[in-house]
Amino acid sequence: MESWPPGGSGPAEAGPRLRGLRGADLAASASLLSGAGAGAEAGCSAPAVAAVLPAGGSGERMGVPTPKQFCPILERPLISYTLQALERVSWIKDIVVAVTGENMEAMKCIIQRYQHKGISLVESGVTRHRSIFNGLKALAEDQPNCRLSKPEVVIIHDAVRPFVEEDVLLKVVTAAKEHGAAGAIRPLVSTVISPSVDGCLDHSLERARHRASEMPQAFLFDVIYEAYQQCSDYDLEFGTECLHLALKYCHIKAKLIEGSPDLWKVTYKRDLYAAESIIKERISQQICVVMDAKEDEEHVGHRLEEMLKNELNHVKVTSGRDLQQIILEQCYNFVCVNVMTSDFEETQKLLNMLEESNLSILYPVVVISVQFLDYESVPFGQKMENLMQIREFAKEVKKTNILLYGLLVYYPQSTICRVG
Amino acid sequence: MESWPPGGSGPAEAGPRLRGLRGADLAASASLLSGAGAGAEAGCSAPAVAAVLPAGGSGERMGVPTPKQFCPILERPLISYTLQALERVSWIKDIVVAVTGENMEAMKCIIQRYQHKGISLVESGVTRHRSIFNGLKALAEDQPNCRLSKPEVVIIHDAVRPFVEEDVLLKVVTAAKEHGAAGAIRPLVSTVISPSVDGCLDHSLERARHRASEMPQAFLFDVIYEAYQQCSDYDLEFGTECLHLALKYCHIKAKLIEGSPDLWKVTYKRDLYAAESIIKERISQQICVVMDAKEDEEHVGHRLEEMLKNELNHVKVTSGRDLQQIILEQCYNFVCVNVMTSDFEETQKLLNMLEESNLSILYPVVVISVQFLDYESVPFGQKMENLMQIREFAKEVKKTNILLYGLLVYYPQSTICRVG
Repeated sequence: MESWPPGGSGPAEAGPRLRGLRGADLAASASLLSGAGAGAEAGCSAPAVAAVLPAGGSGERMGVPTPKQFCPILERPLISYTLQALERVSWIKDIVVAVTGENMEAMKCIIQRYQHKGISLVESGVTRHRSIFNGLKALAEDQPNCRLSKPEVVIIHDAVRPFVEEDVLLKVVTAAKEHGAAGAIRPLVSTVISPSVDGCLDHSLERARHRASEMPQAFLFDVIYEAYQQCSDYDLEFGTECLHLALKYCHIKAKLIEGSPDLWKVTYKRDLYAAESIIKERISQQICVVMDAKEDEEHVGHRLEEMLKNELNHVKVTSGRDLQQIILEQCYNFVCVNVMTSDFEETQKLLNMLEESNLSILYPVVVISVQFLDYESVPFGQKMENLMQIREFAKEVKKTNILLYGLLVYYPQSTICRVG
Repeated sequence: MESWPPGGSGPAEAGPRLRGLRGADLAASASLLSGAGAGAEAGCSAPAVAAVLPAGGSGERMGVPTPKQFCPILERPLISYTLQALERVSWIKDIVVAVTGENMEAMKCIIQRYQHKGISLVESGVTRHRSIFNGLKALAEDQPNCRLSKPEVVIIHDAVRPFVEEDVLLKVVTAAKEHGAAGAIRPLVSTVISPSVDGCLDHSLERARHRASEMPQAFLFDVIYEAYQQCSDYDLEFGTECLHLALKYCHIKAKLIEGSPDLWKVTYKRDLYAAESIIKERISQQICVVMDAKEDEEHVGHRLEEMLKNELNHVKVTSGRDLQQIILEQCYNFVCVNVMTSDFEETQKLLNMLEESNLSILYPVVVISVQFLDYESVPFGQKMENLMQIREFAKEVKKTNILLYGLLVYYPQSTICRVG
């Protein structure tokens, strides 16, 4: 049984369903729930939460033939990033994705390839609202084909908003439990105007009094399902706003939650560029230096740490004991330092852990194995042997998306303090 | 005297004030003007057009200490890209930029460094509307400090929308001449909602009936200046929409012009990433292959052209005669092919033209000088001499932001058909 509030979750599972470990950050938000009926003690039964992800769009605004949710970012489809963001939240039980019949097979391949868990697929409708409705039907117990259990709260999110964080999901779910409906909002970037039929300005809206309605949104399941069952064909065809349906058909005034700029929707080609840069920045800003606890090595390691800290946000140095934890926290860059040893035992141990973790399914993992060898005592033949050995390793692990590089540093022992 | 309509403009001036040469594309739009009072024959007097660019914002949404208009993209401040986009339009006479007193010196440095022309600076106000008003005052003849001549039409644009194209500027100016006011619009990306005072949903707006008001906008100068003179302090403090002022104070219903996605405003850090990728893509997608008209070389050149066309959008092959024109069209990548010659005459000629053009003030220009030499007839010593010569050239031109690379291809003459 999962514990609730989510702040009390244990460490993440291994595998690509890696979970965020920001329990401490979330404890404050989670405590909000205690006043809203849910037990705040660890181990209380969790309110059942599911998510519906409409992904049937054609992406015509993107200007590319592939629907935007399937556009690759660093070779991986956008929707896979969004699924990862949702499935690493331990208290979301089921994720229902609505895709077109045409894309059903492609979606199954994505789920298999990136080892997504807890995903159910339903066929999308011709509009966004119809797709969401199909997703809700799969969760409703009154439907003949219902394969899932009805949640208390349902999150509705977009397949093309990959950077959603656990804290905003928690806030909308918590508010939905209290108010029946809740949604993330953002300030307007441009003034909104209303054109007249002849293409001229009729009136403009005061920017400060309006907000952009973003995703995620969350609803008591019974509220939003009722709203969809009652709503008109016109709403299903031309509507765009789930909060509006809850208001119109169930008289529920949704609680509005200020979201972060990260919630933006990938809409145009430029957004793909931005998403790629954000992901690259995130994964390139953390690095872990692995080394033995020997004194020489520590010296080198701490010099390296100092230098790396000038360039990168997250630099960790470990003797290897907490490597498992660092891998779970999704570090993609490792430097393995070996002083005065010509074997690759440490590197091999790290590679094994990385392979077991499946971390490299999501992005390539970079490992640089550095060997410091005293050139006075190591014969040339052994240098070459070392070189060959690491090339063999590199060839092998490349198959699992781990990029291994070897760096041999030969030095006269007296100058070690200048190395690193 | 500039000719009007702008479709009739001559080729661009040399120097960094390089002008777009899309006259043919624009002729159709420009002809719209003939019905609006402006003469359509080449040589008719142009309606005087100026632009005002409010650039006094603090960029607090960006999450970085530098105001966003001064954030670097590929090491060059964002506002410089926007100025370039405006100043390459030959029929915009003056550009007035409103910056804070604090940033006045930095702005002067940018103008000098990137050789922007026709720019006047005024001090910005504490709000966007006040900054625009200060810009208009600098253009109005009734002001004591007026240094510029009053335009018939004034464009208002944002410093943080660097990708504005001449065609949309022409459309808003043409429509402003006819209607008194005009502005670019875009479909809404998100539904807009109105919150109640308790932070809940009051109502949502039908997305299809509303538009985002973007920039550029254009106005008959007398209309917008009158509106600013009459408008209330409340408008100046809290308003965001110039079209609204023209409507409220001069009863002018602005014509709305559908703009392209490129008009978006750089607002968040992700937008800087996107802008950088767009600029990189644009400048990396065109390449010019320069070669002698000798038969061997043509063969190599056309093989190269075929291969490059698989990768890039704009590949040109020239014997050097139209190089001036290609440089004016802002091509930043050159391959200079030399077959069976060991001198760098062609490369040197290209480098001279590039240096004269000042093209590399805006972005680095990349030149790859390829020499094919028969290894059977060229002694080793000469190889090295060639290598050294190009390194000297490269060192020299790097000072002017031209990146020169040398590629020496040695081959047995019988296999030339496999080279390239």
